Amino acid sequence: MKRSTIGVFDSGVGGLTVLKALLELIPGADYIYFGDTARLPYGSKSAETVAHYAVGAVHFLQEHDAELLVIACNTATALALDKIKLAAHVDVVGVVEPGAQAAAAASRRGKVAVIGTEATIASHAYRRALEARGVEVLEKACPLLVPLVEEGWVDHPVTEQVARIYLDEVFSGEFADADALVLGCTHYPLLKPVLARLAPPHVVIVDSAESTARVVAASAVAQSGGAGEQTLHFFATDSVEKFRRLGERFLGRAIQDVQHVDLKE
Amino acid sequence: MKRSTIGVFDSGVGGLTVLKALLELIPGADYIYFGDTARLPYGSKSAETVAHYAVGAVHFLQEHDAELLVIACNTATALALDKIKLAAHVDVVGVVEPGAQAAAAASRRGKVAVIGTEATIASHAYRRALEARGVEVLEKACPLLVPLVEEGWVDHPVTEQVARIYLDEVFSGEFADADALVLGCTHYPLLKPVLARLAPPHVVIVDSAESTARVVAASAVAQSGGAGEQTLHFFATDSVEKFRRLGERFLGRAIQDVQHVDLKE
Repeated sequence: MKRSTIGVFDSGVGGLTVLKALLELIPGADYIYFGDTARLPYGSKSAETVAHYAVGAVHFLQEHDAELLVIACNTATALALDKIKLAAHVDVVGVVEPGAQAAAAASRRGKVAVIGTEATIASHAYRRALEARGVEVLEKACPLLVPLVEEGWVDHPVTEQVARIYLDEVFSGEFADADALVLGCTHYPLLKPVLARLAPPHVVIVDSAESTARVVAASAVAQSGGAGEQTLHFFATDSVEKFRRLGERFLGRAIQDVQHVDLKE
Repeated sequence: MKRSTIGVFDSGVGGLTVLKALLELIPGADYIYFGDTARLPYGSKSAETVAHYAVGAVHFLQEHDAELLVIACNTATALALDKIKLAAHVDVVGVVEPGAQAAAAASRRGKVAVIGTEATIASHAYRRALEARGVEVLEKACPLLVPLVEEGWVDHPVTEQVARIYLDEVFSGEFADADALVLGCTHYPLLKPVLARLAPPHVVIVDSAESTARVVAASAVAQSGGAGEQTLHFFATDSVEKFRRLGERFLGRAIQDVQHVDLKE
């Protein structure tokens, strides 16, 4: 039986936390990962620009035989999922819906907090997805968490202090009793230990990367596992060395075979 | 007498600290500021790409009658100043040389520390400029400082803690007695108070933005002040709203009249 190829797209290395979750749940598939590192961060760009870049990535992944596309980038999902779906001729799974679905299921009180980058929060994509499920939502942008992860300070007193400041703001007032916290950024799984330590004990931490992998695992493409050695290909639009170095932290294993690619504007 | 027009270019809003210094020193000129916000940060891009973008910006500013160009972007100065000068038909001033010159003059012991973004430090542009003046150099990338400034935490205990960690690394060992610190990033002038508090008392803080403005002030173009109301025009390649909101913190005054512009690739 032929192995399926799953394409994973992110603006950088953060989406490797989604790939990591996919590899754990669907070890029988092949993967191709595209990180648009030369044009990150998408968070500061307009919806139109992000859609334009994302559609380019979608074409690239399809030309490399991806049979299902995972948009492992909260910004691209939030700002451009509709345009991506229109441009793709295979199924597309974004990170927002799976995270919202898992959080709505996990919350007993119907009160969910979402943390993410400024762009993701400003898009209100999680708010819409959660409110559509009858859940009350508090959204909080945490712009320092990504740079702290990229600095490698995942278990550092400064990161703990910053996370405490953000979470204190989240779990206060009307949302003191919220009982689910969505990690709405693909960098945040690396901070799960510190966030789990600092969030009130009754709060369920919902990792969008994991929720997304579970949705993909339920798809037809994921069912067609095959024989032979698994292939993992990585493409980056900027330095392959930097991608490898930073990426290994997110993927939790060695990264070989990163190729540089230039996309036309 | 006709007022001169000075063009200022940066990848984002950081260069507004240079414009702020220019406005203080040369109030008699008109200014046009171009922020290539859709394509920032330049730091993760190749020298070729940065040169290509910068030359586009230079043409834009010249078409809008700039008689002198200030490259208020450390990355563009470090990676592309020669190409920019070749493409320009007016005088060009970058931020690296003025900062290096001021630091070399300020240091009595001939030992200077430079802090900046990862890209600026990796370019070793300040090292070259300082070593050419016979000064010993220690360079230190401080990747968390830009996000802290953009979060608005310019006077915050976390920023103080992060800055202390970075500066402790800088002023230790052989460089414990360095006596000048170059702020090699246009975001850092906002952190001058905290950095001045934390650096050893004998250390002179050299603000590249200010040093650059002084070099421009000495040019012929700056001498031809004129009558009439000053004009300040701002152009950004991404959201004008975000440019205005973030930019006002850097410029220290209200920003009106931001126009969106799309540059051909």
